[in-house]
Amino acid sequence: MTQSTINSLARRRRSARNFRPETVPMKTILSVLDTAHYAPSGANEQPWRFLVITDPELRKKVRQSSEKGEREMYAKVSGEFKEWLVGHGLGPMKPFLEEAPVLIVVLMKADAKYARESVWTSIGYILLALEEQGYCTVPYTPSNTSYPLAELSAPKGYRLEAILPVGLSGDNSPRTDRVSLDTLVFINKWGNKASGI
Amino acid sequence: MTQSTINSLARRRRSARNFRPETVPMKTILSVLDTAHYAPSGANEQPWRFLVITDPELRKKVRQSSEKGEREMYAKVSGEFKEWLVGHGLGPMKPFLEEAPVLIVVLMKADAKYARESVWTSIGYILLALEEQGYCTVPYTPSNTSYPLAELSAPKGYRLEAILPVGLSGDNSPRTDRVSLDTLVFINKWGNKASGI
Repeated sequence: MTQSTINSLARRRRSARNFRPETVPMKTILSVLDTAHYAPSGANEQPWRFLVITDPELRKKVRQSSEKGEREMYAKVSGEFKEWLVGHGLGPMKPFLEEAPVLIVVLMKADAKYARESVWTSIGYILLALEEQGYCTVPYTPSNTSYPLAELSAPKGYRLEAILPVGLSGDNSPRTDRVSLDTLVFINKWGNKASGI
Repeated sequence: MTQSTINSLARRRRSARNFRPETVPMKTILSVLDTAHYAPSGANEQPWRFLVITDPELRKKVRQSSEKGEREMYAKVSGEFKEWLVGHGLGPMKPFLEEAPVLIVVLMKADAKYARESVWTSIGYILLALEEQGYCTVPYTPSNTSYPLAELSAPKGYRLEAILPVGLSGDNSPRTDRVSLDTLVFINKWGNKASGI
């Protein structure tokens, strides 16, 4: 395997849903978002906007409005996905939205070309940039994004794509498993595995 | 600004649409895809599949089938987007699909939760990992993805999200502009700019 900082960061990173109370320097957040805004985007429309929330009252509102949508979703969900959620200790409560010292709310100009593809490319950048700086997050998309969006007075035409709670991890759970690379990568023909994985 | 390898790679990277003929070692491609498969995904469903194409005949088929969809799109497009395309020298011809020594076709298990969000997060990882190894790409989504998908004999239920031509850059065009970070990042309230950007 080729030596790679990016590969090491990707392997080290894990999602956190519990955070320690220490603050994150604003210059770190701005550096990470500087990285994000160099991502490529459809027709170079740069559809991302980042609302950084440090205000505890606003974090509380974002949590409460997000949980409203989660409660509605959990009341309806069933089957395999419900089992998966329960098995992973997930529920409608999202305390990390209040406990993380910083939230990065990722908004998207909805009418931009390939807007979602572009925004999530930039989120990929953010995850690695945060990991490099020693901070954790989890890309959280509320079940009903319109509830927290209503708290943010964003102009019409923007959608909320993700809320990234940022801080030092308070989790000590192992990283979730990955399936083996040789079931994901094929060479020249579906099913034709690479040698040397 | 905090010192950051990721930030430097993001700033250095630019999309390439012309490629030199030198091959890319398969171990480099596999390392990059190893990085990609550590991206987080909705419900950890890991919806990405990567078909690596080095076979010139198959690259040609992917080019021809992609261009079929582009010709149909260009025949219909008008207005601002048409002007943007023409102004950027873009057209229905996609020679880079044949000229780049390697294509990474990114496929997506379409029924996975947050499938597109997850796949494009992993594409963000891929872009930085390729840049680190000195290789270029452009995330290209064909106007009609079903045409090239039909050449790939992927099982039902997979969508083609992007084709990444990979190689040494043959471009010398400057990177596309980015809008100023202080128009993209707000603190605690939409419109409230950060100091220190």
